[in-house]
Amino acid sequence: MGAGAVRAAVGPAHLRRRAAEHAAGPAALRGRAVTGALDPTIAARLKRTPDGLVCAVAQQRGTKEVLMVAWMDDEALHRTLTTRRATYYSRSRRQLWVKGETSGHTQYVHEVRLDCDGDTLLLVVDQVDGACHTGDRTCFDASVLLAGEG
Amino acid sequence: MGAGAVRAAVGPAHLRRRAAEHAAGPAALRGRAVTGALDPTIAARLKRTPDGLVCAVAQQRGTKEVLMVAWMDDEALHRTLTTRRATYYSRSRRQLWVKGETSGHTQYVHEVRLDCDGDTLLLVVDQVDGACHTGDRTCFDASVLLAGEG
Repeated sequence: MGAGAVRAAVGPAHLRRRAAEHAAGPAALRGRAVTGALDPTIAARLKRTPDGLVCAVAQQRGTKEVLMVAWMDDEALHRTLTTRRATYYSRSRRQLWVKGETSGHTQYVHEVRLDCDGDTLLLVVDQVDGACHTGDRTCFDASVLLAGEG
Repeated sequence: MGAGAVRAAVGPAHLRRRAAEHAAGPAALRGRAVTGALDPTIAARLKRTPDGLVCAVAQQRGTKEVLMVAWMDDEALHRTLTTRRATYYSRSRRQLWVKGETSGHTQYVHEVRLDCDGDTLLLVVDQVDGACHTGDRTCFDASVLLAGEG
């Protein structure tokens, strides 16, 4: 599905999504069967930015490294919960983005938690190779602004 | 310093801050000597939201628990780097917020990292008691949207 088309449409997210799927056909789902919409009880608890997003922190299972921070809309969260493949919403490209779909550096999602405010998600994942587009293991590896005191 | 006054003023952040400090007097600094402004080389690397903020993830040193996610403006980051007391910017109250100043649940900052995009900080902290306003240890303790597979 062209997520841009979904974003441009109007109406409740689940109806927009269904309409876009109907219009675009199954190929737009990139081979994965994602049906339905985000659980309404979850959707009701989200506190989104004005552009409909919540923040998502990805943490490696076991080592507990903080890998990266990205954004999700309802559709990205629904796909993440139902496929266990971390799926984000790219604010710059204005479309859904399955982590690692082109690089192979996917995130298998073990657990998803919502914070007390309803505006941030914590994903516990298994990261394949580096999470960062630079090739680093995490997006926080390269730049230390304040060093530990030893 | 009434951070609201700072936000309402105009001009470069460091000049606004100095003007506000001058106007408000040392008492406004709540007893801590914070001088100067955010290092210009750091400021130049930040990619802020339209309202001038970057995202900040607080992680407990040692256990590596993700404690909470909040926001910082340049002033909050400057104070965090210079005092090692985690200081955030409250979007709802539109003012700086020294974590734990009223609750005592402070965060001593060991390390601060900036991510590859320049829009997210990772703080490695020692959290006193619970990080969450609900009393929980972390803001992610209460709500599991997707459980681990065992």
